[in-house]
Amino acid sequence: MASARLGAVSRGGNEYRLPDTMKAWVLGGPEELALVEKPVPEPGPTEVLVRVDAIAVCATDIEILKHGLPAMIDGELPFNKGFTPGHEYMGTVVKLGPGVDEFHPGERVTVEVHAGCGRCQRCREGMYTSCLNYGHRDKGHRANGFSTDGGFAEYAINNVNTMIPIPDEMSDAEATLVVTAGTAMYGLDVMGGIIAGEGVAVIGPGPIGLMGVAVAKALGAQPVILTGTRDGRLEMGTRLGADAVVNLNREDPVAAVARITGGKGVQYVLECSGAPNALNEAAKMVNRGGRICLAAFPGEPVPVDLAYLVRNNIYVFGIRGEGKSATHRAAALMAQKRFDAKIIHTHSFPLADVPTAIKYARERIDDAIKVVVQIREN
Amino acid sequence: MASARLGAVSRGGNEYRLPDTMKAWVLGGPEELALVEKPVPEPGPTEVLVRVDAIAVCATDIEILKHGLPAMIDGELPFNKGFTPGHEYMGTVVKLGPGVDEFHPGERVTVEVHAGCGRCQRCREGMYTSCLNYGHRDKGHRANGFSTDGGFAEYAINNVNTMIPIPDEMSDAEATLVVTAGTAMYGLDVMGGIIAGEGVAVIGPGPIGLMGVAVAKALGAQPVILTGTRDGRLEMGTRLGADAVVNLNREDPVAAVARITGGKGVQYVLECSGAPNALNEAAKMVNRGGRICLAAFPGEPVPVDLAYLVRNNIYVFGIRGEGKSATHRAAALMAQKRFDAKIIHTHSFPLADVPTAIKYARERIDDAIKVVVQIREN
Amino acid sequence: MASARLGAVSRGGNEYRLPDTMKAWVLGGPEELALVEKPVPEPGPTEVLVRVDAIAVCATDIEILKHGLPAMIDGELPFNKGFTPGHEYMGTVVKLGPGVDEFHPGERVTVEVHAGCGRCQRCREGMYTSCLNYGHRDKGHRANGFSTDGGFAEYAINNVNTMIPIPDEMSDAEATLVVTAGTAMYGLDVMGGIIAGEGVAVIGPGPIGLMGVAVAKALGAQPVILTGTRDGRLEMGTRLGADAVVNLNREDPVAAVARITGGKGVQYVLECSGAPNALNEAAKMVNRGGRICLAAFPGEPVPVDLAYLVRNNIYVFGIRGEGKSATHRAAALMAQKRFDAKIIHTHSFPLADVPTAIKYARERIDDAIKVVVQIREN
Amino acid sequence: MASARLGAVSRGGNEYRLPDTMKAWVLGGPEELALVEKPVPEPGPTEVLVRVDAIAVCATDIEILKHGLPAMIDGELPFNKGFTPGHEYMGTVVKLGPGVDEFHPGERVTVEVHAGCGRCQRCREGMYTSCLNYGHRDKGHRANGFSTDGGFAEYAINNVNTMIPIPDEMSDAEATLVVTAGTAMYGLDVMGGIIAGEGVAVIGPGPIGLMGVAVAKALGAQPVILTGTRDGRLEMGTRLGADAVVNLNREDPVAAVARITGGKGVQYVLECSGAPNALNEAAKMVNRGGRICLAAFPGEPVPVDLAYLVRNNIYVFGIRGEGKSATHRAAALMAQKRFDAKIIHTHSFPLADVPTAIKYARERIDDAIKVVVQIREN
Repeated sequence: MASARLGAVSRGGNEYRLPDTMKAWVLGGPEELALVEKPVPEPGPTEVLVRVDAIAVCATDIEILKHGLPAMIDGELPFNKGFTPGHEYMGTVVKLGPGVDEFHPGERVTVEVHAGCGRCQRCREGMYTSCLNYGHRDKGHRANGFSTDGGFAEYAINNVNTMIPIPDEMSDAEATLVVTAGTAMYGLDVMGGIIAGEGVAVIGPGPIGLMGVAVAKALGAQPVILTGTRDGRLEMGTRLGADAVVNLNREDPVAAVARITGGKGVQYVLECSGAPNALNEAAKMVNRGGRICLAAFPGEPVPVDLAYLVRNNIYVFGIRGEGKSATHRAAALMAQKRFDAKIIHTHSFPLADVPTAIKYARERIDDAIKVVVQIREN
Repeated sequence: MASARLGAVSRGGNEYRLPDTMKAWVLGGPEELALVEKPVPEPGPTEVLVRVDAIAVCATDIEILKHGLPAMIDGELPFNKGFTPGHEYMGTVVKLGPGVDEFHPGERVTVEVHAGCGRCQRCREGMYTSCLNYGHRDKGHRANGFSTDGGFAEYAINNVNTMIPIPDEMSDAEATLVVTAGTAMYGLDVMGGIIAGEGVAVIGPGPIGLMGVAVAKALGAQPVILTGTRDGRLEMGTRLGADAVVNLNREDPVAAVARITGGKGVQYVLECSGAPNALNEAAKMVNRGGRICLAAFPGEPVPVDLAYLVRNNIYVFGIRGEGKSATHRAAALMAQKRFDAKIIHTHSFPLADVPTAIKYARERIDDAIKVVVQIREN
Repeated sequence: MASARLGAVSRGGNEYRLPDTMKAWVLGGPEELALVEKPVPEPGPTEVLVRVDAIAVCATDIEILKHGLPAMIDGELPFNKGFTPGHEYMGTVVKLGPGVDEFHPGERVTVEVHAGCGRCQRCREGMYTSCLNYGHRDKGHRANGFSTDGGFAEYAINNVNTMIPIPDEMSDAEATLVVTAGTAMYGLDVMGGIIAGEGVAVIGPGPIGLMGVAVAKALGAQPVILTGTRDGRLEMGTRLGADAVVNLNREDPVAAVARITGGKGVQYVLECSGAPNALNEAAKMVNRGGRICLAAFPGEPVPVDLAYLVRNNIYVFGIRGEGKSATHRAAALMAQKRFDAKIIHTHSFPLADVPTAIKYARERIDDAIKVVVQIREN
Repeated sequence: MASARLGAVSRGGNEYRLPDTMKAWVLGGPEELALVEKPVPEPGPTEVLVRVDAIAVCATDIEILKHGLPAMIDGELPFNKGFTPGHEYMGTVVKLGPGVDEFHPGERVTVEVHAGCGRCQRCREGMYTSCLNYGHRDKGHRANGFSTDGGFAEYAINNVNTMIPIPDEMSDAEATLVVTAGTAMYGLDVMGGIIAGEGVAVIGPGPIGLMGVAVAKALGAQPVILTGTRDGRLEMGTRLGADAVVNLNREDPVAAVARITGGKGVQYVLECSGAPNALNEAAKMVNRGGRICLAAFPGEPVPVDLAYLVRNNIYVFGIRGEGKSATHRAAALMAQKRFDAKIIHTHSFPLADVPTAIKYARERIDDAIKVVVQIREN
């Protein structure tokens, strides 16, 4: 990964000499990842070529490795198609597609996942993560790492509308966390977004949950309560701003929320655990008229007490990722140092060790939370 | 029920001579309804005494008869407390509480159920059906027929903010249907409210479902699809504006919605059946980013495919009744004769026959949909 | 304009043989319109070539003829550039750009004006009429008849996201009115959109005002009040659903609204007159907390009583055209025959007579309201 | 003002022995304030008696002193009626009205101004600052210091829904600033409320403007730009979080915003100056589709370029005070020490010196910003 290989940078002229080929991990059959040499892709109109400098491993990457893509694209499985996964990446602009002037070569950026088609009803109303042409590359949709090549590679193509400039002060590793924080922020946004002084409970101290704690607190929520099973992660939640943490192994979380809020409950729950009973518990954590965002889900259908939701006028928002430009808002909070996202970054590996990085994330080896692949030295 | 009994009306002077006592049905133990003589109640500040002229039987009344009130008020069951149920009523203003000048004696009104406390956070934000002081009469909350005396009686007290004037052209029986139409309208409102040209599926051709069809079509939804099992009710849906009806016994409803919409699905589902699999089916009826309102619910927790909701960015709105003044909007559409709500009114009984009226509604005798108790001759 | 000239249609095969050139009106200097022979344009990706069958004259066309385009594009005046104006048109799909399958040749469509760039912040949030790249064709923005060639021609290019299918039952002339009704609907949408039973006043019975009356009434507003100076147009308002009309020459409009609403005022005003005092009058027509949409404006700055707006918590929404897919909603209401938009269509001319058509519209000759250029016989 | 006079506090028992009379400033004719002895008022249902501990002087107080109340209540001027002005106060709960249990004697609280009637359409939708029964005390409306007695007195009555608990760590003087910060927050809320990473310009470094800077920055806005004429106040803006300040005497504010934002403009403007041309300038500070909140206004109608608002799809929100419980959110941010509101508190006086306090505020003597009357020693 010598810098010579990645192209000599002449920042003055804002030009990069790019190689013809690059290293990229590609998906074969289930659980088959191979590092191959692929042509460096060419950015089209509205697109930018980004040199990937760092990329984090997401739980969804692990799902994709096992099952292929989420069943969004009929009959088009990623297995054996040479697909490159990975979506939580950042890097440096190295080449602009025709007509692009919003960025300049040498600019550091992080990316969000979804570029909608721009032509369907959902995109037309700004709901680009719900694009009705999901997976239709020919219609302009991109979901890098999901339906188009992602960031476990030296270079990646990005639609100009998915890129967020980052300040010099933000490290590469930190910038890979923007999309995670953006997903948490989107969850708070869809529940109403105006949360200063409101109670927020976050279920599940995974990366999205921990960023949910941080964002909620940065926006003034009070109290912010985090529930989980691992004291180490709960302690991280405290460092990120949680006013109270609850270890399920020691206290019933619904009772704990009641205790902490003096019986009033919270207004919002961000459910990030995917636990089978989490929605039912969330419903009992919110007060009447409360709102719940599902940012995770159990693998199988689970029993849900719908009567409780109806009788208590509860709204439940399933979210697919990081819509409504929430990544920009998350990046802004991080650039303003409102919380230290870096503390959830626990391990780093080079590009050659992607399988090891994934193994650490999957098996939570050494209490891994966010594992980052550092493709370039900072 | 001679008019002498109900007070001599002198419309010119807008004064009513009121009796001291009235007939009212009261709840004893489960399934025990008795017709008793009770004092005519006195309206307080912000309240109005309404002479009940007609009242419809709602499925919730039947639940209350069996189980007592929804478990909203801790430790305060309605059994053996002389509580009068019934909430879908209309009548004539006969006495104003101190300071009330919004109405005048002799005015015909229909009512919505919930008067919030006006002092809690939810009421303060306009979510009065989610009042955090639900059931606390001392704090100003009223939910007539639920936590305060309702309309299976000759007279009933109403907060001035729950009353809707109705035009002379609207019959008493039709006016009892406003709150049902208002609940359906609230369901459409919470899903976004701007539905002209959007596809709406309604699951379950009960009263709320049928009114949902009517309101959705009145607001320009296209197509409006109604699913159910009884051809007679589905045919009523057609008369109320459904563009297509689907009998579950003959076609899978998810497949039918796909067929009718050319594979696109609908934007909104109003679920009014309470069937165990209705939410899962609703999720497959909407397209990505679609919204579902639950206006009914199964008695027990049911398996729900939460992964599908999350992956497809679907929002689910549980609603408790008829909030955000939706009854006013429903009444306006009915006054403008946008749909003929009266066709769901299938049977009438006098006040003395409330048990028979309830029996008809409960057992769907003679295909009963809305059974109305006509307390006064029109 | 024989059909041979416009290309032989073979509907079975959905193919059109297209000529190489077409007739089109182009703008020279101020007030200079010339009918020229231009190449038939070629649709690019995301684009469709539409054979223009009918186009209505809008007041904005007259402004453009006189002053050039609204000052949205720095230093790029339309004069002497061969620009074809006209934006209220409909027609028949004759050729699809690469990758377009949402429409098929032979399909009748009407169009909205604005295709946003899809890459700026506003487009990303669904506000495509406020595209920050307005006028930048190279970034994907189109505003046909404003910044890209419009419909006073035999053929026109359209982004696939600006096209609305219309039913066979809707005539060509009626379909040209969809964008006008869509603008009125957008005005109601931005003010909240949920208007059944709410009072709406419309100031100015021009085409947008009259469509505002029609749409407001179709959605159940009550009362709908129209103010203006010409009895003929006010009478049209009545036919389109106005509950009351006010001739300014005979009654002060603020007093009239108070009279009609029993002193309560209306909730919403749609201001379509551009009269100097219209906003101040609108502010006194709404009740406290009311909302006003400005769909027209005076040519010069005018005195506005801002204190009144602040003290009464009034919101004022300036709208640029027909955003948020409101044209689809308007087309749906028109397809459902909720109002008869055709009555505002007063005069028709052939393509060769565009200058006469504009003269009629500009000078209101023979009480002209909507003048339509019928390019093809229906 | 010895504490004996104000009632002996027995905190253990939570009981206060209250005097029969109290000192209160009352309004006679214009500019006539007199300190009188009045009966201590009795809290009714939903009400609480608060011992006023501190109260800030607001510009509106000065207006009221001169002109009487804002013309909200027909024919009921405050002059010569013994009315007590003052609305930015805080204090200690000393007596609960019947049925009140949300607070306890001894609790420190700050207050918002408006208790809506709870029965009109606006209150029913949560817009209590736009109450249609404004000034009708008999219908439950209170706007303390405007239409009901305010806080330039030893005791004041408050509706339970206008009270906000404050933590021990917040001083009396700081707590008087909550309603000012709440007004600024409400202004940001009505413009959308989700502002992290968005550009916000604040015009006018008065108390609301300075709090607007603080709240906008606390919520993550970027950049926050403050414009004004006094360097001392601008410097306070910097301390409260402004990323840039502009002195109008040295740079055109529109040009400055363009310069600071790289030509992009801001998304939101909070106009707090009331300057005649402020709205026109605000319109040129925002980008297309931007939003402006008017929290101040010129005394006379001023020329406004409405064409610019319409062509650029700009929304303008007039706000009356501090609605939608924004005071709670402001108090939460202040309790969390997100900004130091205290720096705008420049002068203190005892109750006996209210006229001097007002004189300092009015004439900006010694650069006064917020002048606080400390009724009790802290």
